[in-house]
Amino acid sequence: MTLTLIIGNKNYSSWSLRPWLALKGAGIGFDEVVIPIYIEGSREQILQHSPSGKVPALRHGEITVWDSLAIIEYAAEAFPDAAIWPAGREARAWARSICAEMHSGFVPLRKQMTMNVRRRIPGFPVAEDVAENVARIETIWSETRRRFGEGGPFLLGSFSAADAFYAPVVTRFVTYDVQVSAESRAYMDAILGHPDMRDWCRSAAEESWTLPQFEV
Amino acid sequence: MTLTLIIGNKNYSSWSLRPWLALKGAGIGFDEVVIPIYIEGSREQILQHSPSGKVPALRHGEITVWDSLAIIEYAAEAFPDAAIWPAGREARAWARSICAEMHSGFVPLRKQMTMNVRRRIPGFPVAEDVAENVARIETIWSETRRRFGEGGPFLLGSFSAADAFYAPVVTRFVTYDVQVSAESRAYMDAILGHPDMRDWCRSAAEESWTLPQFEV
Repeated sequence: MTLTLIIGNKNYSSWSLRPWLALKGAGIGFDEVVIPIYIEGSREQILQHSPSGKVPALRHGEITVWDSLAIIEYAAEAFPDAAIWPAGREARAWARSICAEMHSGFVPLRKQMTMNVRRRIPGFPVAEDVAENVARIETIWSETRRRFGEGGPFLLGSFSAADAFYAPVVTRFVTYDVQVSAESRAYMDAILGHPDMRDWCRSAAEESWTLPQFEV
Repeated sequence: MTLTLIIGNKNYSSWSLRPWLALKGAGIGFDEVVIPIYIEGSREQILQHSPSGKVPALRHGEITVWDSLAIIEYAAEAFPDAAIWPAGREARAWARSICAEMHSGFVPLRKQMTMNVRRRIPGFPVAEDVAENVARIETIWSETRRRFGEGGPFLLGSFSAADAFYAPVVTRFVTYDVQVSAESRAYMDAILGHPDMRDWCRSAAEESWTLPQFEV
């Protein structure tokens, strides 16, 4: 059965990066369709694939599933050997919690530091509400690594969906020159060095689309 | 193993209602701890149960899981016979998609019509961005019922987590006097008539806490 992931621009679409990287990192092969977002006609084009009119969406044979988190849960079920989530029940509960917290929260960070993979803005000012988000994220990273990170450089040791969920945060911290602890920086380097993440960043740099509303 | 759900005020905490109703509706027994939110000391109290400092959180023996959606996925795995999600793979993918769409979206509705179970405000003005949210929700309800609703009055026929996820929207539509189609109204009546939902609404009405910021 063909598996197709419909995503937005790699430079800007943080929600697209999450399932893309979760699937790639788990070794699940898929076709990708890139639809440039926020330009004339893009909503109509997305609606052909996704009932919500938003990316990402996944098509698997006759089944369509949309929204980053639902796609990841669907794939975890459809490909149980791929280890999208960590194996232990406690680790899996923790991973799901930090993904869900990201999925519904961190609005100041997401609004004021939109993902822009190829940009670098040294000394970008960090507002107070964004700084609170950054502090919570650093706590999540360090607490997760301390509890479950023994087996490798990623949040729960081996690469999992939790890393895919925080990967767009890593690129934001790079773009907006956010100052973090050495421990956080080491984790960021692990994400930035992941071969699939490097692929994504390379493609983002090569895209020709520029969206002025995301270029501060 | 003891199962304990930590929730906020039943009148105001829409995120608490979701896992509470999903677990109750699936017949999973649990103890509940109610912590009044947005008052002095509540954050410290919540932090004793939930690493994010937010409700809801679920404790199951040694395991803690937080955020509505992570709690529901955890419970679906821990109690596989409880049918938290619908049984068919396609129905389950759809149910997860509409839950995730609610979990990360509908910000205008959530901000301008905060949940307030016991209040009634006839003729509350509906802003344009809220009206767009309402329209999308009515489409979700009718499309889900049309595709999967044959076996009963709920979104996917039998009661599932998808209904629990939209239950706080149902109470908002009642509170703020939102005009909807007869089809939507019939679905709302099914939710409002669910015995566990009636329990929740009764408890909300009996709570003595009033939060001025949620009383427009």
